[in-house]
Amino acid sequence: MKRVAIIGSGPSGLSQMRAFRSAEEKGAQIPEIVCFEKQSDWGGLWNYNWRTGMDAHGEPVHAGMYRNLWSNGPKECLELADYPFEEHFGKPIASYPTRPVLADYIKGRAEKSGIRKWVRFNTPVRMVTYSEARSKFTVMVHDRMKDVVYSEEFDHVVVATGHFSIPNVPFFEGLDTFRGRLLHSHDLRDVVEFIDQDVLVVGRSFSAEDVASQCYKFGAKSITISYRSNPVGYNWPDNMTEVPLLERVEANGRTCRFKGGFTKDFDAIILCTGYLHDFPFMAEGLRLKTENRFWPMGLYEGVVWESNPKVFYLGMQDQFYTFFLFDAQAWFVRDVIMGRVVLPSGEEMAAHSRKWKVVEEKTYATQDIVQMIWFQADYIKELVAQTDYPLRPDDVEKTKQHGLEWKLNKDENIMGFRDQVFRSVVTGNMGRKLDTPWLTAFDDSVESYVK
Amino acid sequence: MKRVAIIGSGPSGLSQMRAFRSAEEKGAQIPEIVCFEKQSDWGGLWNYNWRTGMDAHGEPVHAGMYRNLWSNGPKECLELADYPFEEHFGKPIASYPTRPVLADYIKGRAEKSGIRKWVRFNTPVRMVTYSEARSKFTVMVHDRMKDVVYSEEFDHVVVATGHFSIPNVPFFEGLDTFRGRLLHSHDLRDVVEFIDQDVLVVGRSFSAEDVASQCYKFGAKSITISYRSNPVGYNWPDNMTEVPLLERVEANGRTCRFKGGFTKDFDAIILCTGYLHDFPFMAEGLRLKTENRFWPMGLYEGVVWESNPKVFYLGMQDQFYTFFLFDAQAWFVRDVIMGRVVLPSGEEMAAHSRKWKVVEEKTYATQDIVQMIWFQADYIKELVAQTDYPLRPDDVEKTKQHGLEWKLNKDENIMGFRDQVFRSVVTGNMGRKLDTPWLTAFDDSVESYVK
Repeated sequence: MKRVAIIGSGPSGLSQMRAFRSAEEKGAQIPEIVCFEKQSDWGGLWNYNWRTGMDAHGEPVHAGMYRNLWSNGPKECLELADYPFEEHFGKPIASYPTRPVLADYIKGRAEKSGIRKWVRFNTPVRMVTYSEARSKFTVMVHDRMKDVVYSEEFDHVVVATGHFSIPNVPFFEGLDTFRGRLLHSHDLRDVVEFIDQDVLVVGRSFSAEDVASQCYKFGAKSITISYRSNPVGYNWPDNMTEVPLLERVEANGRTCRFKGGFTKDFDAIILCTGYLHDFPFMAEGLRLKTENRFWPMGLYEGVVWESNPKVFYLGMQDQFYTFFLFDAQAWFVRDVIMGRVVLPSGEEMAAHSRKWKVVEEKTYATQDIVQMIWFQADYIKELVAQTDYPLRPDDVEKTKQHGLEWKLNKDENIMGFRDQVFRSVVTGNMGRKLDTPWLTAFDDSVESYVK
Repeated sequence: MKRVAIIGSGPSGLSQMRAFRSAEEKGAQIPEIVCFEKQSDWGGLWNYNWRTGMDAHGEPVHAGMYRNLWSNGPKECLELADYPFEEHFGKPIASYPTRPVLADYIKGRAEKSGIRKWVRFNTPVRMVTYSEARSKFTVMVHDRMKDVVYSEEFDHVVVATGHFSIPNVPFFEGLDTFRGRLLHSHDLRDVVEFIDQDVLVVGRSFSAEDVASQCYKFGAKSITISYRSNPVGYNWPDNMTEVPLLERVEANGRTCRFKGGFTKDFDAIILCTGYLHDFPFMAEGLRLKTENRFWPMGLYEGVVWESNPKVFYLGMQDQFYTFFLFDAQAWFVRDVIMGRVVLPSGEEMAAHSRKWKVVEEKTYATQDIVQMIWFQADYIKELVAQTDYPLRPDDVEKTKQHGLEWKLNKDENIMGFRDQVFRSVVTGNMGRKLDTPWLTAFDDSVESYVK
């Protein structure tokens, strides 16, 4: 029997296991699945972890979410097609769930699928190598509970370790002399630290706007967002302002100087400067090297490692869609592994990827996030068309409207967009409005959110 | 020609390279040396790094030192015998150097030795395996600058990665709900964060007493030290107090309850709970598994991996002596590799280690740090007696008196012991008293310290 190694049991790893389980439930003979998970439970990033830096075993902490984090996109753009939110919670819920709610949801499907037996927890992967001679992968792992390193052979390897756990931390002159609190958003656990403080947020992508808004919500004295090229541009409250890129921290260790000459003293600097795609456990030749793009190169259909099509990477795209994007990919990968989808030649795969890349680059050129969302929707449509994933291309098409509305809502009220609700393309039902708007909701528990 | 891989170019790795270079300078034919270093420069822990968590390449940050850290032991108990402080700085200096002074010093010998060419920087080691068939080690490394993983074969491997970079972070009930600043001392970079704050320091070893003293020096409002078994017991200033072990953080996220019932609200918790000996890059069978002990088991003469005596571990002991302990070990390892020291049989090595272990355990039973220091001095004496290291057993014996005085000085004045000076056993000269006592010295630069 073929053996498949899945690295990671976060949302994308869970999607991969669910995809195989789904085939098995329909009577198919599936390969042997082994999932290696560094953490002590599944859920990936959606596990809150009070630790920063290293975990209890000395492994880099995967989690990077903070208390009171809410989804920054509508749940109707990530809903798992075979497991509606309404099924999990027994009733309709609002559209921007809190972290605990989303964690509960994705774990719910996993538990229900009976796939826990496939996962080896507390087991980071050390190195994946490929033997041409034996046509097998050797996966060397570290069982941290028994403290034993061992290797096993596999026919396929699915990398599902995500790309939001290795912070990208640029240096700015004088940052090493800053005498306040300095951290990357990956290490942020609670913004209550910043109440009544002057906070600098460096970056202008989703983390930056979310962390800045969070600081506002919890009572920072002032929030300054420093952007590289263009401001985020929302209609921020009075104590929030956008300035050009940080130039340096002055010798007093408190004053920051920005391009154009603006200066201000800060108590804290939060670097929302993104993440690295980093797979140090993959041998040379198997290792994806890419920036955070909507179309990373070298991956046929965004998932098949073209240089060795027995290796797959899930969720390596810059993402608007998440959970059901992973599902769409996982169903496709499953069908490649099970021979239901036949891969074209290497040359054809590369040509296909280049075709998508051209469109991606044109779309980037518009600098319009809605266009990017629609690009990703088109990609998902192409994937689901090739498998039996319950979400059909037409359903995916409908979510494009969600993407547009999401952007309009943010433009209208960046501190209020999370109060809007959307219609599920899975159930056809509308989300249920929250009693308490996001700005004044300070309890992120499942009980509070779904009550 | 034999090839030797040295992993790490901190103090112990530098000692190993210096040992080989010293033999070469005396006309010996030495093996080919390759040192793999994760950081972009040598110096190990003594490199200050403003980063915490991951470094610029996504590797765990090795450094754990904070601004204004001073040595907590006299430099006369770590002075490199072939490179006196007086030679490096051109004059006598005081006995408790600051971090930049010690960093400058150890790098000074390395630069002078012309060994930089042996070091491959930005190159973490991924995996070391051993082939019985070829009697060779395969060392797989990641060149982070070129982003290429490659392997090379070696006859010997010296692990010199230290054991103060992977924090040991225990969980206490409610710690995950604490709503102030929470960190392990490994991530501490500047105590100015804690001015006017109520700080809890958990732990009672050297980090704890040093971090607590540092918080006092820089103006924390109160410092509470929580110990597991026994208080540190120094004559602390009025706003410092020792309490039994932390039991839990209460539901309000601020109040800590300790064994015995004492409670107090804190702004910050600093976990000074030590480090793990962790070598995830060593294959099973080559990997040292030990707690922080004065005599770790499995290492003949504290350095030779008994299960495969072509592997060596430097500096894996709990340490009072540091730099010249590493030198003593490195000279011994060099001589084993060069065939100048012939190893006894495996059985004899194990028996020898057990003999030392019995003494170590008896010494621990005294709970007397001075006895432990003397135990370590005896170990160093045994090492240097077997090589041409310039420090002779009699010199090492003299440092026992330093250890005793150090302890008496601390007992007398924990906030003043760093103002004392000692006589160098290398040069015979006394250290030069500082003009400004430690408690009021806020400039840790080399210029300020050696002026």
